[in-house]
Amino acid sequence: MSGSARNARIADSVQADRLWRRLMAMARLGATAKGGVNRQALSAEDAAARNLLAGWAAERGFTTFADAIGNIFVRREGREPDLGPVLTGSHLDTQPTGGRFDGAYGVLAAFEVLEALDDAGIATRRPVIAVAWTNEEGNRFQPGCMGSGVFARQYDLDTMRAVADRDGVTIAQALSAVEAHAPLARREGAGFPAAAYLEAHIEQGPILESCGHTIGAVTLIQGIRRFQVEVLGEEAHAGTTPLRRRKDALKAAAQIVGALETALDDPADVLRFTVGRFETFPGSPSTVPGRVSFMIDLRHPDPSTLRAKGDGIAAIASAHARGCAVTVSEIANVAPTPFGREVVDLVRETAAGLGYRTMEMISGAGHDAMHLAKACPTGMIFVPCLNGVSHNEAESATKEDLAAGTRVLAETVATLAQR
Amino acid sequence: MSGSARNARIADSVQADRLWRRLMAMARLGATAKGGVNRQALSAEDAAARNLLAGWAAERGFTTFADAIGNIFVRREGREPDLGPVLTGSHLDTQPTGGRFDGAYGVLAAFEVLEALDDAGIATRRPVIAVAWTNEEGNRFQPGCMGSGVFARQYDLDTMRAVADRDGVTIAQALSAVEAHAPLARREGAGFPAAAYLEAHIEQGPILESCGHTIGAVTLIQGIRRFQVEVLGEEAHAGTTPLRRRKDALKAAAQIVGALETALDDPADVLRFTVGRFETFPGSPSTVPGRVSFMIDLRHPDPSTLRAKGDGIAAIASAHARGCAVTVSEIANVAPTPFGREVVDLVRETAAGLGYRTMEMISGAGHDAMHLAKACPTGMIFVPCLNGVSHNEAESATKEDLAAGTRVLAETVATLAQR
Repeated sequence: MSGSARNARIADSVQADRLWRRLMAMARLGATAKGGVNRQALSAEDAAARNLLAGWAAERGFTTFADAIGNIFVRREGREPDLGPVLTGSHLDTQPTGGRFDGAYGVLAAFEVLEALDDAGIATRRPVIAVAWTNEEGNRFQPGCMGSGVFARQYDLDTMRAVADRDGVTIAQALSAVEAHAPLARREGAGFPAAAYLEAHIEQGPILESCGHTIGAVTLIQGIRRFQVEVLGEEAHAGTTPLRRRKDALKAAAQIVGALETALDDPADVLRFTVGRFETFPGSPSTVPGRVSFMIDLRHPDPSTLRAKGDGIAAIASAHARGCAVTVSEIANVAPTPFGREVVDLVRETAAGLGYRTMEMISGAGHDAMHLAKACPTGMIFVPCLNGVSHNEAESATKEDLAAGTRVLAETVATLAQR
Repeated sequence: MSGSARNARIADSVQADRLWRRLMAMARLGATAKGGVNRQALSAEDAAARNLLAGWAAERGFTTFADAIGNIFVRREGREPDLGPVLTGSHLDTQPTGGRFDGAYGVLAAFEVLEALDDAGIATRRPVIAVAWTNEEGNRFQPGCMGSGVFARQYDLDTMRAVADRDGVTIAQALSAVEAHAPLARREGAGFPAAAYLEAHIEQGPILESCGHTIGAVTLIQGIRRFQVEVLGEEAHAGTTPLRRRKDALKAAAQIVGALETALDDPADVLRFTVGRFETFPGSPSTVPGRVSFMIDLRHPDPSTLRAKGDGIAAIASAHARGCAVTVSEIANVAPTPFGREVVDLVRETAAGLGYRTMEMISGAGHDAMHLAKACPTGMIFVPCLNGVSHNEAESATKEDLAAGTRVLAETVATLAQR
């Protein structure tokens, strides 16, 4: 059989309706009133999602197992079981007010690839594994992309298992609770050699849609730095304390945010400066806030720009402290991640071969692929989402675009698994 | 017996150590690690405080009863029981990070007055009632000064009983839970005619201390307006969404706070502008905030200044909306409350007669006396607190100053109760 004939058969075995049904079934777990999903990492909803995936795998006769950080692996055996497998997947956890496709699409596209390979009767040389990484979103537990980071030896397993949420519950404890509801075969430790990793994802930005392209072959994930800022003032009575005597943490923090906006303004609109978490204590209407705690998310594709802009934050914050004590701590710093030329070319050529309008692009969002790129040849396949909206309950994508991305994923995975 | 001889005997019966011991016993209920108190309205700690007060009352043979909004009344009978009683008291609830004296002092000073009258063997013409008003602080349930507002017919009883906290628990439900732990004789409805009301309180500001005075005779409580501001933007991915496309509720809200600071700046430092509660949603580090909700507390002694400054807030907020939808709702508006000249003079002259350095002053804080002034002749007695600090766990006052205020309270109450 010629390569192109084989390829055509795999792409044809991808079923758009089956993929869509699974996505909609998954979206019911943690569904919100506004049509989005709240399925945070290691929550009861996350446990239910893990059970659903494992149940589908069992129906198809695939082997499922988990590792010590809770990553889930669904394995379709290869002709040479001892060779490093090709991995493909994403994550099942969502933002608190997230959508139906961020993460879940990559996991269920990967599962669709396993099914398509089966349906097409293809025996690959290497095993193919669909994976759902633990805690990509990094909301309740920091850092995000935790499961993939441990797998790729970027984070230490024991350190990550000891990470606690704001109530003091650790990853290890939350994982035990999840495992009690979603029991799976468990491997000791985390991480094993892989031949390659591919991740399908909605773009989460407006570029594919505005250019009229269906497939993005991702060349690079932009860098990200995260900073925790603590502003310590002095609680006081709102009615009696003269303003000149106050150390008002809220007014200082508001001014710091404004000053950072000015300093980080980018006429080209490439630098991304976000304050997503901002908490005020004690939060009583008649008490001058004694403490504000907020988090800065800063991203740029160019390492030197990211370095220079991030390094300037602490001085700007201190300059607007207004008598409060201000501390700035860096809690994450991931340099821009380029993907290897070989995988990018394979994705682009495979997509073009299937007739899809395809472009190379960078990823504005961080993804698990960021860590996997440190461990094996890695690539990502983007499909459009409505108005570029993501991390929002209104997140939307079409059945056909999602199937298109899955066809490209299936062909690319099959090619890599035959090598 | 001459008036001055009778008066001297009551003041002498006030026991500084007894009052201090009761204050310290009360401060254990909800005590925080930093030496403050967290005893929020209708909490388990509040129930324990009510039990402690009722227990002390029972030991002394006073009658205790509660009304339908949970105000507690400890009654010492008068020679003419049908005459309107003289009321004195304050509140037992605290801020989430409150101190040991705000509120509790006024209640326990009132109780000390009942004991001092007993110890001195004084039979007053009118009954004297020590009162603890429900929910003065207004943190979990809005508005504050709720119990006194219902008593004085400023708020409707049923409307207030239906007020819910952010979890949907109503005052009526929270009150039932408290009553289950702190059962008291219960009167139907709320409010009865009173001859006068007096409230002792720490100043919560720096004036008495810096002037070297022991007693403040309060002439007026400054006015207060509260506004709820909602900023509705659009959630988006922090890594992918160009800044020019965002509707960032946090950056807009921070700019609104800054613009309000500028507009409300008062070179005389009399206008009080505070943002004590400021909440950001969804609060995820990698999501552009789609909503910020914050509360403005604005106070001034002059009604026309308060009106003009408060009325300007909505336009300033809208001018800095940056594409978000901004709504400003007024949730409280209490005009400055002057106390009648007769009671102010009586307090000042009584204090001077006892030899205390005394001054007239206005109250920067709101108090239950604000509502009582609508129902009967009302006054307040202030004593110094360390560095003027209140609404803070570090709140502090001296045993001697607290006893001095209680002596002035005892004399003033006795005079009014003989009329």
